[in-house]
Parts: sequence; C-alpha cells; structure tokens
Amino acid sequence: MCEPLAGRRRDRGASMLSVDQAVAILLERANRCVDREAVPVIDALGRTLATDVVAGIDVPPADNSAMDGYALRRADWSPGGPALPISQRVTAGSAPGPLTPRTAARIFTGAEIPAGADTVVMQEDCTATNDAVRIPDLPAPGANIRRRGQDVERGQRVLAAGRRLRSQDLGLTASLGLAEVAVWRRLRVAILSTGDELVEPGRAAGPGQIYNSNRFTLAGQLTAWGFEVIDLGVARDEPEAVRGALLRGAEAADVVMTAGGVSVGEEDHVKAAVESLGRLDLWRIAIRPGKPFAFGRVGDTPFLGLPGNPVSVFVTLLIIARPFLFACQGREGGRVRPLPQVAGFSKPGGTREEYLRVRCGAGGLELFPNQSSGVLFSTSWADGFVRQRTGEAIRAGSTVDFLTWALFE
Amino acid sequence: MCEPLAGRRRDRGASMLSVDQAVAILLERANRCVDREAVPVIDALGRTLATDVVAGIDVPPADNSAMDGYALRRADWSPGGPALPISQRVTAGSAPGPLTPRTAARIFTGAEIPAGADTVVMQEDCTATNDAVRIPDLPAPGANIRRRGQDVERGQRVLAAGRRLRSQDLGLTASLGLAEVAVWRRLRVAILSTGDELVEPGRAAGPGQIYNSNRFTLAGQLTAWGFEVIDLGVARDEPEAVRGALLRGAEAADVVMTAGGVSVGEEDHVKAAVESLGRLDLWRIAIRPGKPFAFGRVGDTPFLGLPGNPVSVFVTLLIIARPFLFACQGREGGRVRPLPQVAGFSKPGGTREEYLRVRCGAGGLELFPNQSSGVLFSTSWADGFVRQRTGEAIRAGSTVDFLTWALFE
Repeated sequence: MCEPLAGRRRDRGASMLSVDQAVAILLERANRCVDREAVPVIDALGRTLATDVVAGIDVPPADNSAMDGYALRRADWSPGGPALPISQRVTAGSAPGPLTPRTAARIFTGAEIPAGADTVVMQEDCTATNDAVRIPDLPAPGANIRRRGQDVERGQRVLAAGRRLRSQDLGLTASLGLAEVAVWRRLRVAILSTGDELVEPGRAAGPGQIYNSNRFTLAGQLTAWGFEVIDLGVARDEPEAVRGALLRGAEAADVVMTAGGVSVGEEDHVKAAVESLGRLDLWRIAIRPGKPFAFGRVGDTPFLGLPGNPVSVFVTLLIIARPFLFACQGREGGRVRPLPQVAGFSKPGGTREEYLRVRCGAGGLELFPNQSSGVLFSTSWADGFVRQRTGEAIRAGSTVDFLTWALFE
Repeated sequence: MCEPLAGRRRDRGASMLSVDQAVAILLERANRCVDREAVPVIDALGRTLATDVVAGIDVPPADNSAMDGYALRRADWSPGGPALPISQRVTAGSAPGPLTPRTAARIFTGAEIPAGADTVVMQEDCTATNDAVRIPDLPAPGANIRRRGQDVERGQRVLAAGRRLRSQDLGLTASLGLAEVAVWRRLRVAILSTGDELVEPGRAAGPGQIYNSNRFTLAGQLTAWGFEVIDLGVARDEPEAVRGALLRGAEAADVVMTAGGVSVGEEDHVKAAVESLGRLDLWRIAIRPGKPFAFGRVGDTPFLGLPGNPVSVFVTLLIIARPFLFACQGREGGRVRPLPQVAGFSKPGGTREEYLRVRCGAGGLELFPNQSSGVLFSTSWADGFVRQRTGEAIRAGSTVDFLTWALFE
C-alpha cells in the first residue's frame, strides 16, 4: 500500500502518493489508543467524548412560561368579560398548585404552568391590580408556553461520541442534569527534534547554527488540540542519541513524532534508528511544502516522521498528521472541509498539491510572496491555506479552497 | 449614547440600538485592564502579546543550502570540464572554511555556504566519488541557496502587540532566538448565575427547577478565550445574596458578568443590586435571541448583564460581550468577519438582527427548525450562526453571512 522510496530522482509526480491517499492509508492504520475516564462537566472543555450524551430528562422538564404575565384557562375568558381574580403567584423555581377555576395565576418567565392553565398572556397586554387582571384580548391557544421536552426529549442523543466538547456542549450537558461526562484520556504525543545545527532560543547561536523552532510549533499545536506533549528535546545527530530518545518516547507516549532527519541524507539518523527499533516507510507524497514524510513504528508505538523545514512541519502536521492523531484520540473531524473563497491572485498548477499561505484581503485572498518551505513567517502572516490541487490553475477572481487556521482547531 | 429603558412595551425596532451600535459603545468604554508579564515561549500558546515581536537577527542567519549536494564557484566550472576535487564537507550546524579555489564542497540541507561558493548543485544531478564530483550541467547562479535574511530580516516586526499567539507564532518567535515573550496577564472574569429555579447538575431537580447550564457555557467559553474564570456560583433571588456575590466578583475580577436577572421582572434582583453598587444601563438591542442586555459597573469594575435564556447567553457572549472582553484583555480581533456561504433555506427578514443556528449541508447552510432562545441544543447541533441583518430576507441559494464557531476562537 505504501510505496518504497523510488531512488533519489527528483519527483516526477506520477509515482507519488496523493495527499488524500496518504491520509487514507494513515487512517486505516490508526487505532484509538486511549482509555476512557470520567471528568466533571466544568472541566471537560476541549475533551473528546467517549460515549454519546443521551438526555435522561425532558428539557424543559415541565410546561413553563416564556414571558412575565398571567396564566389562565381559555374557557374562563370571554370578550369584554370581567377581570379574573389572581389566585396564585408562580415564580421560577416554585411548584404551582392547580389553577383555581375562573381565576388567573400571576406567572414569571421560566415558571411552571399551573395544571389547568392553557394560555399565558403577556403582562404588557393586560391591566392588573394586586388582586385581579383584566385581559382585553386572548392570544392563540398555548401562546407563551414552552412545552415540556420541546428543547430536548428524554432519550434523545444530543452529542455523539468522538466530539470535542465546546462551551455550548458543556452547557447542554449540564442542562440535562449531568455532572460528569465520559471522555477519552488525552492522547500522549512525544516530540523529538534532531539536528546538530539546532540551538535553543535564549542561547547564543554559533556559526552555522539556527534556532530550534519546530519544537515550539509542534508542542504548541499538539497542546491546542488537547493532547499531552512529551518533549524529548533535541537529539544530537548520532545514532545512539536518536535511538535512546525514540525509545523513551515510545515508552511514555501513544505516538512518537520527529521533525527532520527522515530524508535519505547521510546525516539523517532518524530513519536508521526507527528502522532498527521497529519499521519505517518513507513516503513520497505529492504535497508542497511537505516532503519527506515517514510513517512507521518504534516498537509498537506509531511513529510519524515529519520534514525538517518549518513550513513543511506545519503543513504536514495540519494536513497529514492531524487526521491520524485525531483518530488515535478517538476524535471525529480530522479531515477539514475547506470554505470556498475568492482568490485575489493567479498561479499556475503544479505537479504536487500545494498549501499556499494566504491572507484575507478586500480583493480576495492574497498570496504571501515567498512560498518557500523555510519561511515560517508566512504562516504567521497568513490567515490560512489555499489548497491548490495538483494541476489546478488559480486565476484571480476564481473560487478556491480556503482553509482558515480556525478550521484546524 | 446608550438609551434608557423605554417602558415595558414590546420592541418596535425603532428605538433599539443596533448590534453594531451596542458593540461600538462597549468598545468606547473598554480599557485594557491587565499588566504585562514575561512567559517562556513554550508556555505562551493562546496568550496575548503585550509588545510587538521584532526580529533581532536575520533568518536564516547566513546563506545556507536548500539541498543535499555540492557547493562550488561558477568560475571554476566549464562544460565538459574535469571533476572538481571535494575539499571539505559541510553539515548543518558546522562552520565551513572558505571554499578552496577550483574545488567543490560536499554540503547538506541547512548547512552554511562556504565563503566563495555561489551555487549549489543537487546531488541527484552529479556523479561523485569520495574525492571528486563531476557536474554535467550548472544550474542558475545562486541556485539552491537560501539567502541570509530571506525569511525574516533583522529589525522586521513579525508579530504585532494584541495578537493571540498560535502554534506557528511560537515557532516563529523561537526561530528568532527569543526564549520569552511579553504578554498581557490573563483577564479575570467573574461569573454569577442567579435564579431560585436553578439546580446544579448531579443533584435531583425539584418541581419547577431546572439545571443550571449558563454557568457551564460561560465558564467554558471564557476559558476557551484564555481568560481566568472566577466562578461566583449561583446567588439566590434575594437582594443581599446578589449584592454580596457581585461585590466579591468586583474585588477579585477585572470584569463581572451575570446571566439572567437583568430584565425588569419583579424577581430580577441583579438590576437593583448593580444600581446600588455602581451604575447600570439596560439596553434594548435589536438582536434575536439576546434580550435583555445590561452594561454598567460594580464599584469601578465593568459589569455585563447577559440575558437568562441559554441561547441568548451564548449569542450575547459571542456577539456583544466578546469584543468588549477582548479589548479589556488587550487582544485584537474582537469583531469577527463572516464568511460568505450559500443558504439552503429561506426566511423573511425581521425587526431585529438574528443569529440563526445553522449547519453546513450539501445543499448549503441548513436551519435548525426551532430557533427559540431556550433551545441550547441548537447551538450544539449547529456549525455556526447565520447573521441575518434587520429587514434582510434570506432566499435559498443566496449568499449569507456565515459565522462558523471556529471564528470565535
């Protein structure tokens, strides 16, 4: 299913995996690898549901008033008839008695409708004293009454397993009386940077050295997705250092990821280390930026080998790794649906699927001038990607697939 | 600028504030009310920058190789000429010596270009032994070389104060050698629920009682925005209980928010309590759902009084409160730009701006059948809002303003 590395020739397109193929293969191999746990609803933001949330009650639990006003029985009213005596006062949270015949009940928003009442008249449409209310006109039967179960019916599935919980989902779950939800334990992802040229921010960079940025992009994004990050640090470009770090990662984490070190260069030790500890397939995926990408395992732990260039890391993390990681977490929505938007630029099609950094502008999406895989600034400048399919020419004014960053949440 | 409550008559539209007016008034009154603090870049995800991030170095710091290959001086090459001796081997992170004339340097991706070399030839395009390399064709001058400062130039502002940091921003900041960033201290928001009808999830609900959901929606969303939530719990519908809770909130937090209790009903004690402790304006905003909304202060602490119905809370939180809270935090982007999308439904215009819960479907956006302000399920079912402006009719197939949830991040 996945291709061996076909020599060292430059890409020609034909023998490469498409992005969709690569993601499909990864999803076939992804298994949820976390157990469930119960957490209080108040702490469940961003967690992934392990079971459906099913309503155990009707919402609202009883007919209640949508307005401040007066509840009555229609049969007790006649046009131009006398004022109705006010026989009780029903506030939200109180339990009303049955409505005394030929009377009205003073009632407030959210308060339960007394048995026997079938209509609520807004207070603005009545003339009332302390003791009686005069109602000139009657609204439709059932007016201003919220029916038991009209929002959610007992037995209704309101949230599906695999959903990442948003703020409103917490409110909805709480409204059903549930204090806890079953969620999947956070996926643990170990990350490793390799490269003797890398120096940590805050230190002085020597000649030939560059600051390590991939560690920060990876840790930040994995955290944003609600995963637990196990930072293996930076391994020197030595086989034993890389092997040792990978083994620590495989022991502690559900998935091990690296940035850099998986091309076929003589200085790329990740490839050999993973092969010696499990297995590795180098993939040639028709994606730009984003080469090379590797998939395998360290012992039994899945391994994702991302490229080393900062934008390639970012693109493959969002486009290739994300669906796999979401599946491992048991979370739905790993594949993102683009939003059609108008392009403000033109660009011929290429031999690979391109993820162009673009910004929203008055005249449509604007292209960052330097689309090189080294320019991480392009991803901060941009509002999202345009996905340009292989061979698809983009013309200014045409509609393109826009992936705003927020869609990758 | 903000209107007094104009009696108890039903809305007629004319005397109401538009949503844009309400937000503009709030923004005029919003002051950033947090101090700056320094945090490690690795911990800065989701924090708001207090200062611009300006590059102190060039990125890359020196010309480097974009490929594994051979670096040479063009003048040393001639068509059909002899193989060039390999005089040094430059790996990423090492400091090369100047290129010996009439030789080539073996070089790897990311490695610094030796002084004197002006071109890199990909290894795939050469024939090499251990000692010498034969180069049949020469690429363009400067080929496969990433120039010093081509990604970011020293002195360039790469991120602006007020930005909420994304994963790629962490990577970008780290790539500049910065270990810390200056961010605004997290905004502290106190939330209070009121209503004797409210019971906490996990307990048995008595007659007339409903489960408190607003607390969970509010706490969840404020947390998602990176604020610190101070949960004041539920106050009983008694003036002293409400006053006491509000005072505690004003003491501990930068902003105090309530859900419910700010209409003019006889059981709404929040209004009177805030008036006695500071000042309160009840606003009639032309928004549906979302009435009533109140703005004021408790002592010197800003106060936002949200409606009590769960969807009204959610809508006013995202549409009215969010821009104000973001401004208090010092964060940009409080106003969300909708994405044009095709409607799969028709709906006549109304007298208020409506925030319709919709879902993405094959035939365009689909409308949740029950748009009542009580049906929180609609917000979990939906992918976002359609913003329907006052008086704007929506026809199936027309383009509407879509606000997918992710835009409110």
